[in-house]
Amino acid sequence: MVYNIGLLGLGTVGGGTAKILLDPVDRHPLLEEIKIKQIGVRDKSKTRDVPLPPDLILNTDLEAIVKDPEIDIIVELIGGLEPARSLILTAIDQGKHIVTANKAVIARYGDEIYAAANEKGVYVLLEAAVGGGIPVIKPLKQSLGVNKIKNVIGIVNGTTNYILTRMSGEKASFEEVLKEAQELGYAEADPTADVDGLDAADKISILASLAFSGKVKREDVYTEGIRQVSAADINYADKLGFIIKLLAIAESNHQLGEEALQLRVTPTLLPKDHPLASINGVYNAILVEGEPLGQVMFFGPGAGAGATASAVVSDIMNIVGILKSSGNTNDLDPLLSYSPSHYCKITPIEELITRFYVRFVCRDIPGVIGHLGTCFGKSNVSLESVVQIGFLGELAEIVVVTHDVREGNFRQALEEISKLEAFKSIPSILRVL
Amino acid sequence: MVYNIGLLGLGTVGGGTAKILLDPVDRHPLLEEIKIKQIGVRDKSKTRDVPLPPDLILNTDLEAIVKDPEIDIIVELIGGLEPARSLILTAIDQGKHIVTANKAVIARYGDEIYAAANEKGVYVLLEAAVGGGIPVIKPLKQSLGVNKIKNVIGIVNGTTNYILTRMSGEKASFEEVLKEAQELGYAEADPTADVDGLDAADKISILASLAFSGKVKREDVYTEGIRQVSAADINYADKLGFIIKLLAIAESNHQLGEEALQLRVTPTLLPKDHPLASINGVYNAILVEGEPLGQVMFFGPGAGAGATASAVVSDIMNIVGILKSSGNTNDLDPLLSYSPSHYCKITPIEELITRFYVRFVCRDIPGVIGHLGTCFGKSNVSLESVVQIGFLGELAEIVVVTHDVREGNFRQALEEISKLEAFKSIPSILRVL
Repeated sequence: MVYNIGLLGLGTVGGGTAKILLDPVDRHPLLEEIKIKQIGVRDKSKTRDVPLPPDLILNTDLEAIVKDPEIDIIVELIGGLEPARSLILTAIDQGKHIVTANKAVIARYGDEIYAAANEKGVYVLLEAAVGGGIPVIKPLKQSLGVNKIKNVIGIVNGTTNYILTRMSGEKASFEEVLKEAQELGYAEADPTADVDGLDAADKISILASLAFSGKVKREDVYTEGIRQVSAADINYADKLGFIIKLLAIAESNHQLGEEALQLRVTPTLLPKDHPLASINGVYNAILVEGEPLGQVMFFGPGAGAGATASAVVSDIMNIVGILKSSGNTNDLDPLLSYSPSHYCKITPIEELITRFYVRFVCRDIPGVIGHLGTCFGKSNVSLESVVQIGFLGELAEIVVVTHDVREGNFRQALEEISKLEAFKSIPSILRVL
Repeated sequence: MVYNIGLLGLGTVGGGTAKILLDPVDRHPLLEEIKIKQIGVRDKSKTRDVPLPPDLILNTDLEAIVKDPEIDIIVELIGGLEPARSLILTAIDQGKHIVTANKAVIARYGDEIYAAANEKGVYVLLEAAVGGGIPVIKPLKQSLGVNKIKNVIGIVNGTTNYILTRMSGEKASFEEVLKEAQELGYAEADPTADVDGLDAADKISILASLAFSGKVKREDVYTEGIRQVSAADINYADKLGFIIKLLAIAESNHQLGEEALQLRVTPTLLPKDHPLASINGVYNAILVEGEPLGQVMFFGPGAGAGATASAVVSDIMNIVGILKSSGNTNDLDPLLSYSPSHYCKITPIEELITRFYVRFVCRDIPGVIGHLGTCFGKSNVSLESVVQIGFLGELAEIVVVTHDVREGNFRQALEEISKLEAFKSIPSILRVL
């Protein structure tokens, strides 16, 4: 039997996907039964890297593709919110299964899309939306759900990890490395989505909703990017035994006996022997901790045509595998479909309990460290270390690492400190894992 | 609806499995529909760690359990070859699905078991057989099959990895560390299966058959254990920039245009920046490389009651998920079932192309390094480094690292060298990745 695919988009990932589907030799035999029927593109005349067979239809009318009655699965790779959302909903309405790599649309309209899919009895699979080629969505759904998940911690944005790795290796500034990354194609001309943590926030909201089996609002992810991370901080962190990474974190915590979730994307100091500390360059990794499992980590290429296409095609194959074995029932496999009924309760960032790294610039007068210590003490912030790490002309640079504190108390202490006579500025505040 | 489980074995993993199934709160809701109907044990009177509900039947008649018509899935956790094999086959014959953690029985009788299962239209899932709690079997089946797999390289035995990690950290001898590992329960009283590489060989034959979609004979895995690895070698390897790990490797290579597979378990020198080099202690990790994916790695606890039980219960849930959605068809999902028709062609170890590390003990006479070099040259073995690394009384210790060579040529060179007047002995030969 042949299963027909409608592919929307023939860019980097679309091209990679077509390439695998058109070259099934030495791959899983099921690929022989999957055929691209139509490809939706913006411009038919554009030259393509993939050699396409002459009978393959390129179509600029994407609406017609999602309504083609002979197509079984729509593969949405055009990205962005619209028309992606509308095309996905129309395809579902037509009874077609969906494979997508679009984290933005799922993070924002996942509820609407899943509700429609469950109603129609079709699957929406999105392995490629998080971690590129790394199998992590399916393992979360199918293998880790038997655990009580404690946390999911990911390096899920290759661009920022590349920038931080280069800054760390070469003591270079953020601006220098960003410029180079843009020239090499590792960062976009407008790098906002990556360097401000928005892409990572999309991804952690998707991972959290799967790991903790509850809906998550994208805007509940507290997000800081890496623009504030300086070469100086990387250097000081290194001396203290840490590496700075942009981490996307979802962790469960109990408030007054009630289960709640804390969601954040922040540049974070990691001990050098932490499993995520050695994930460098454009690689991604996702660490999941659960009971009784312990910690497992998934590591691999977080982007790129081939890797992402591998994830897209694996989703297509999964759906075809199910279609071949399930007869004509419209009942969905509860592990592969997704239908949480409730929203996760979210803990606001002020309630977060974490360690902090903070760098102060102060006038170099006797007793200044004592004054800092007193202010922290008043707000119940206990300190792990206070180091006068260098001088900036007349001024002293002091780095403080706290023990675990409530973020609200920490902020209160900083307000007190900013009133000290010796105080000049706080160039950086980072969390410590 | 309720799905009934027959659990064979209530040891470490069986107990962990029962514990999860009896405590479904905060786990995947599907667990509520899974019930342990009978548990097969050797001795009913034994006290157990798991508090079992009074209505749960403990039964010493395992044959009766696999024939109980109300049971849907048999979970085989008794280990060993017999009666495990017969019980699995009887259960399949009765139309029951199988979940097992038994690598030994699958590595040896997988063909027979899968053939029977495919005939009857039932699943045989074995996530827990390799890598404990790490999801790796299902990702290989469901996510990575779209790739042309180049190689699978694993640290898949926790006992040997613990021993090598300790030897490396403390410059201690194999015997000392093995004794401590036995006292701590990380090594068995009879450590043969672990330290001689047999357990790792079982596991790589299973991984290879999945990754390369062909049957693999267990006896085709070339196997060396870690007894020959000395503290001296670990020390020299360290100086040369390497770490020694017991690696289980399946790699594809082309011989005269024909696809062939090389399978081996050997202690191997890894460059310190290799992703597997930092996997320490009882942890496991499996690295898979494919086209177009690149490299992905799965890391986590390779053993332990909780981790392994997590994998067992995830398999049970997968089957129940399918049963809920597939109606009553007997067609198996081709991604989750396993039915290769051919045996993989295997390249013998003599044909392996690899780098070698070899330590010679020679009489310390002038020109000895030249003689060694000449012997290697005659057999077309090109050398990367030759270092006289120390003295043993009157004798000199020389460590040679080769470039990539055919194993057969390398062995031929060693035979020549053993005839040299200065030659005394070769305390160790290790491969280099």
